[in-house]
Amino acid sequence: MRSNCGIDRTPKQLRFACCLGAGHAERWASYYGDHSVSRLFAFAATTSGEWRISSIRGIVGESLPPASHLQVRAAPESPARESPAWVLRGITSNERYITRSEKDQLVAVQEGLGRPGSGCAALIPIRKSAVWWALSQDERRAIFEEHSKHVKVGLMHLPPVARRLHHCRDISADEPFDFLTWFEYAPAYEEGFNALVADLRASEEWKYVDREVDIRLIRDEA
Amino acid sequence: MRSNCGIDRTPKQLRFACCLGAGHAERWASYYGDHSVSRLFAFAATTSGEWRISSIRGIVGESLPPASHLQVRAAPESPARESPAWVLRGITSNERYITRSEKDQLVAVQEGLGRPGSGCAALIPIRKSAVWWALSQDERRAIFEEHSKHVKVGLMHLPPVARRLHHCRDISADEPFDFLTWFEYAPAYEEGFNALVADLRASEEWKYVDREVDIRLIRDEA
Repeated sequence: MRSNCGIDRTPKQLRFACCLGAGHAERWASYYGDHSVSRLFAFAATTSGEWRISSIRGIVGESLPPASHLQVRAAPESPARESPAWVLRGITSNERYITRSEKDQLVAVQEGLGRPGSGCAALIPIRKSAVWWALSQDERRAIFEEHSKHVKVGLMHLPPVARRLHHCRDISADEPFDFLTWFEYAPAYEEGFNALVADLRASEEWKYVDREVDIRLIRDEA
Repeated sequence: MRSNCGIDRTPKQLRFACCLGAGHAERWASYYGDHSVSRLFAFAATTSGEWRISSIRGIVGESLPPASHLQVRAAPESPARESPAWVLRGITSNERYITRSEKDQLVAVQEGLGRPGSGCAALIPIRKSAVWWALSQDERRAIFEEHSKHVKVGLMHLPPVARRLHHCRDISADEPFDFLTWFEYAPAYEEGFNALVADLRASEEWKYVDREVDIRLIRDEA
């Protein structure tokens, strides 16, 4: 995962314990717990950083407070020397629905994060309803792909869109979202990206989404 | 979940913040993170408590240090006024493999934890290999049930065996195990329980288990 992620091109773990005041380091560490390594990521709303927030829009349910910048960090890296307005955290994990054939198709065409041309990004946190989580695996799979064509729709936008899915639901019992998906794409592909999210939002699967926020970002050249 | 769990018959959440020294409460809170509620459980190796450890046996890979008792608590409840020798934590979650038909069969016959006759318990932490987690969902499902008959084998021992599965893999990136399964049964059913775990250990699924510890417990009447 790390090798595909331009966000983490300069590993900073070794600096974590020594370059920050103790209070700051402890506050940041408290977002992660004590033992996390590179599968866990934090998205921190800050006042500076490499991604400038262009919009935060509540799609379903409560939105998130405004902020000017977002910092994306692999735990246990530290954020800027400021207290973030909010932090969301998620962990990369095994896929839950896709078949071998779908996985092979995705792997064949997808590209990694951090491409120089990817000047746009989106962070889309979603939560699914208790009804969704009470379904059995075969019921969720049928809605995910046979009815909603989640993979087929996604494949139409590869490789222009690069993505990384983070799971939140099993980090603790009261994370505000179940998933955080991070997308990167070129500014010229914005319409295509909007079509992708519109198609997913019109699907049967999205009837089970009970909170969704759409955060758009532009790489800050400053 | 809570209502089925005899372990938690006396809720203690309200006492958490006020009845312990601050240092103790902070150490315990550090096992959980700040925000966890009742899906998250901790298994703490202590010197007293309602479950006496009769054996700790490493089945595959490294075992766990010896201890005399185990305390099972829903976060954020506190353990005894002692520092546990070790603590494992896991979170209940949605099922990952079973179909609607299998789920209905299980629900129809399973019984909850905390039955008065369940004088024996087992905690079996397991970790699965990186090869397992790199498989696609359909490949893991085929090994889990079509080849290994995990559900069919389990159903043969219901309702004598009651169980609760806890996921650990997505709490953080370096939990020592992927799953903690807690079992309760009557002393007279011990042979049946041994047959259940022997059947699972002989299955294709268990070829992907790269760490397993078998902890047996007896309810402490003292």
